[in-house]
Amino acid sequence: MAKEPIPTPVTRLYVEGDFTAGLSVLLDAERAHYLRSVLRLKPGEAISLFNGSAGEWCGEITSLAKSAAAVTLTKRNRAPAAEPDLWLCFAPVKRARIDFIAEKAAELGVSRLVPVMTRYTQMSRVNTDRLAANAMEAAEQCERLTVPEVAEPVAFDRLLADWDSERQLILGDETGAGPPIAEALSALSADRLAVLVGPEGGFAPDELDALHGKAFVTPVSLGPRVLRADTAALAALACVQAWSGDWRHGRPDFRAGLKRG
Amino acid sequence: MAKEPIPTPVTRLYVEGDFTAGLSVLLDAERAHYLRSVLRLKPGEAISLFNGSAGEWCGEITSLAKSAAAVTLTKRNRAPAAEPDLWLCFAPVKRARIDFIAEKAAELGVSRLVPVMTRYTQMSRVNTDRLAANAMEAAEQCERLTVPEVAEPVAFDRLLADWDSERQLILGDETGAGPPIAEALSALSADRLAVLVGPEGGFAPDELDALHGKAFVTPVSLGPRVLRADTAALAALACVQAWSGDWRHGRPDFRAGLKRG
Repeated sequence: MAKEPIPTPVTRLYVEGDFTAGLSVLLDAERAHYLRSVLRLKPGEAISLFNGSAGEWCGEITSLAKSAAAVTLTKRNRAPAAEPDLWLCFAPVKRARIDFIAEKAAELGVSRLVPVMTRYTQMSRVNTDRLAANAMEAAEQCERLTVPEVAEPVAFDRLLADWDSERQLILGDETGAGPPIAEALSALSADRLAVLVGPEGGFAPDELDALHGKAFVTPVSLGPRVLRADTAALAALACVQAWSGDWRHGRPDFRAGLKRG
Repeated sequence: MAKEPIPTPVTRLYVEGDFTAGLSVLLDAERAHYLRSVLRLKPGEAISLFNGSAGEWCGEITSLAKSAAAVTLTKRNRAPAAEPDLWLCFAPVKRARIDFIAEKAAELGVSRLVPVMTRYTQMSRVNTDRLAANAMEAAEQCERLTVPEVAEPVAFDRLLADWDSERQLILGDETGAGPPIAEALSALSADRLAVLVGPEGGFAPDELDALHGKAFVTPVSLGPRVLRADTAALAALACVQAWSGDWRHGRPDFRAGLKRG
């Protein structure tokens, strides 16, 4: 069967800072190693740098050594733009699945990842640096301008006690007691949203009672099958973006140059 | 932070056949090994066996040796019931991600997995046995009564040439040229659906032209970010189930015994 090389997109790196044309941006050893040894790029080649306040800028690699690299910015190709204010609160699960959650959440436009320690959570520690690295890599690949923030793990009771009641919390209720998610989202109007999913094994009964008693909680059913925690997180986020988030709008200008433009 | 053991659900195994109360069902060496050495179950313990035509039955392990096991059925606890007729057609991707696609598709109620060889597909072979095993394990865990069928890989042109035009094909169009998925699904009425996603790198321009020319194809946009192939598959399936599939109904009877019943 046919096999054909596909065009390689220009590498995008998330780098903090104010950008202007002509500015030389220094990259640290880790970034330099990635460009040199993983991607095998060379001085003179093009890459893009981006962050939420500067937008995305075209640049040229001007030096590339083991310990550092430099990129000279040429022009801005995307202006800063508002991105969704959408949190994902989730009980930490095992390594491969938590990596997956961080990656997919970044692709699905989550602005903040909040690990929540619930009663049935089987993990006692969370490597937030690892979560942040996975989220950043996914953000770089999916053409976001921001990377999701990763919060320190928080106890379930504390999460609810400190909750900003203006932010609606969409609860993936694994007991199936909530209304279907389509119905629940149609009835919802809030600018700030969060999705909450429990660990494998679900929430404890008293945790569900606490959640159901809060005005800012919208329990939803995700269908007749019992979803894994990572599937539930991703499925709920996709529905939220499709029906209440930034998937409702047409194609953004920056993607108009793609095929079939 | 609190750590508490969670109640272990009864093991469910997918086994073909007609079931009646009192029937002794033989399990092969692989299943026997799984019960004995992985789950450490013992004769006398309860498990469930299920399939699409028999429903789900309670049983008791009556013998458990290295080479085989036997389960005596006691009573049916779920009648057979219609499940969604939803296909996922996808370009094969690398090992961890294709495993992931099979698992998540099973959880999201896909009835048939169809690997499609497109122009930019980088994999030349697909281990369909492995796909089927992943899908079956996920089906056992998520409380389906069926397991997704896994089709042999098909060339992109052949897929379109042989397509049943009564089955609407929802195309995850990575160029962003389609209408937002929420809008597209609202306008759709079809009993038989399929989702199609391309490989990393997307569809070739002539493949997109061929797809856009077909009445049975509904292109959809999955938002402003560029999703990985596995993310696109899963996100599209979640939206389809939420808005056109079996997530629209309330909690099924068989789940009413769960917490907060």
